Amino acid sequence: MTLHRPGGVWAPAITPFRHDLSPDPERFARHARWLLANGCSGLAAFGTNSEANSLSVEERIALLEFLVTHGVSPACLMPGTGCCALTDSVRLTAHAVGLGCAGVLMLPPFYYKGVSEEGLFRNFSEVIERVGDARLRLYLYHIPPVAQVPISIPLIERLLKRYPDAVAGLKDSSGDWNNTKSVLDAFASTGFDVFAGSEVFLLSNMRHGGVGCISATANVNPAAIHRVFENWREPDADRLQAEITATRAVVQKYPMIPALKSIVARGFGDPEWATVRPPLVELTSDQSELLGAELDTHGFKLVG
Amino acid sequence: MTLHRPGGVWAPAITPFRHDLSPDPERFARHARWLLANGCSGLAAFGTNSEANSLSVEERIALLEFLVTHGVSPACLMPGTGCCALTDSVRLTAHAVGLGCAGVLMLPPFYYKGVSEEGLFRNFSEVIERVGDARLRLYLYHIPPVAQVPISIPLIERLLKRYPDAVAGLKDSSGDWNNTKSVLDAFASTGFDVFAGSEVFLLSNMRHGGVGCISATANVNPAAIHRVFENWREPDADRLQAEITATRAVVQKYPMIPALKSIVARGFGDPEWATVRPPLVELTSDQSELLGAELDTHGFKLVG
Repeated sequence: MTLHRPGGVWAPAITPFRHDLSPDPERFARHARWLLANGCSGLAAFGTNSEANSLSVEERIALLEFLVTHGVSPACLMPGTGCCALTDSVRLTAHAVGLGCAGVLMLPPFYYKGVSEEGLFRNFSEVIERVGDARLRLYLYHIPPVAQVPISIPLIERLLKRYPDAVAGLKDSSGDWNNTKSVLDAFASTGFDVFAGSEVFLLSNMRHGGVGCISATANVNPAAIHRVFENWREPDADRLQAEITATRAVVQKYPMIPALKSIVARGFGDPEWATVRPPLVELTSDQSELLGAELDTHGFKLVG
Repeated sequence: MTLHRPGGVWAPAITPFRHDLSPDPERFARHARWLLANGCSGLAAFGTNSEANSLSVEERIALLEFLVTHGVSPACLMPGTGCCALTDSVRLTAHAVGLGCAGVLMLPPFYYKGVSEEGLFRNFSEVIERVGDARLRLYLYHIPPVAQVPISIPLIERLLKRYPDAVAGLKDSSGDWNNTKSVLDAFASTGFDVFAGSEVFLLSNMRHGGVGCISATANVNPAAIHRVFENWREPDADRLQAEITATRAVVQKYPMIPALKSIVARGFGDPEWATVRPPLVELTSDQSELLGAELDTHGFKLVG
């Protein structure tokens, strides 16, 4: 089986809601196509920054199918499919694999805290076995600041040993470079693909054997982030990296998801894009103005 | 509208799984009827100890309907209906209200951490408005050790002011009596019904204006806990309380949900009851033996 393995810059595509809080598939597909045309190699739809867990399983399935039937190749999709309920994870994963997605990005079940490595192993194991499809490429999603349930190195080791074909890599959103480095050192040489969870670590990740990044701000700054990926072996890589790190620093002064939606709403002249589902709250108009002004000062343009 | 308001001892009924991890409605209804016959005034089905978040929405709906059609009055049911996704919370809540359930116990959306009071207010507000049924009695579920998203006193105040009929009370599973006391002091006199989240605080809760407890260990020790509720004004209330506190202390030396299932499996001579869904792991047989032996020493009997 020949597989095109995901790498480069992937965006956890933000999910548009109408004013009545219903998901908007048209805007979603438009944004997806824009991202792919502007530097993203693929889309980790239904990530944390997609408000995935604020969507029902049916809403996620319908949105993913809409993408595939509206100009987005499944080879460019790595949807989030990890839920608290095993049955939901199995259903979403089987659906994504059935559509031919390049991979799935899988959160651990995140309601219970302090769960054992054995319990997490059983969770991923049950999903892999129940989906039972050789096409499955599973990327583990390590995001302890939000999920509060980490993916430890011994757990990765155990999963890789048992499912060397299905377990394809990891997104590290710990914000802790030492952790990313440890995962790279332990597994990168065996073909386990590590994505940095923020473009701040993109260059370091590439230099230590990683394959790219899956980052929130790729939703608004894909071209510049892609330039770092393309040029990571070049002499000006550090300068390019410093630029995207600076842009990220401006955005993350604000709550990330509302900030991304505010930038997109402003950049596309489409105010409804700013809508978020509770428990999130959109930026105030003052915050939006301030963020926009600061990005202008930085010479940042959404459509570039 | 005359309503029978829940009070007394409610069990977050544990959910039985078969060895293949599918939910078992027959065992579930049998356990529910046993609880109601042995001291429970009602069942907070689909609570934390029910592994509710390890079930899909469809599984929860099917199990709840099975209870109602198999001898459990909806007047004795307060199912958990709070999910990460607004649309799931609305669907489960509308379903429970439609069945005539006495109330619903609602977690805040628990994926995003550090969310604002405004965001949580909007979440509960949207659920109440979208369900749009005067029969809705919503109990807020405060369990910061697990959900990591608290229900603050200012949030309760704001919800009560806007929805005085729908917002009926709170279960406090903070494990912090000072918090329970603050909620009681602030709202109990206005008819806001506070349940302690553990029977350890049952007597204190009753003495300060609370209405009962919703506690994990009510799954295995309902009669003794009910005796405290019945006798809380009597001279021997403290002695009765000390007994149930001691039993609880034995059980909670072990991971709570696997321990409860182990006790039920042993007491009913039904080993399949010990099954849990990942990410939980059942007790080892050594742990099970030890727990059983220690409960025997305490003179504890499941069927009493």
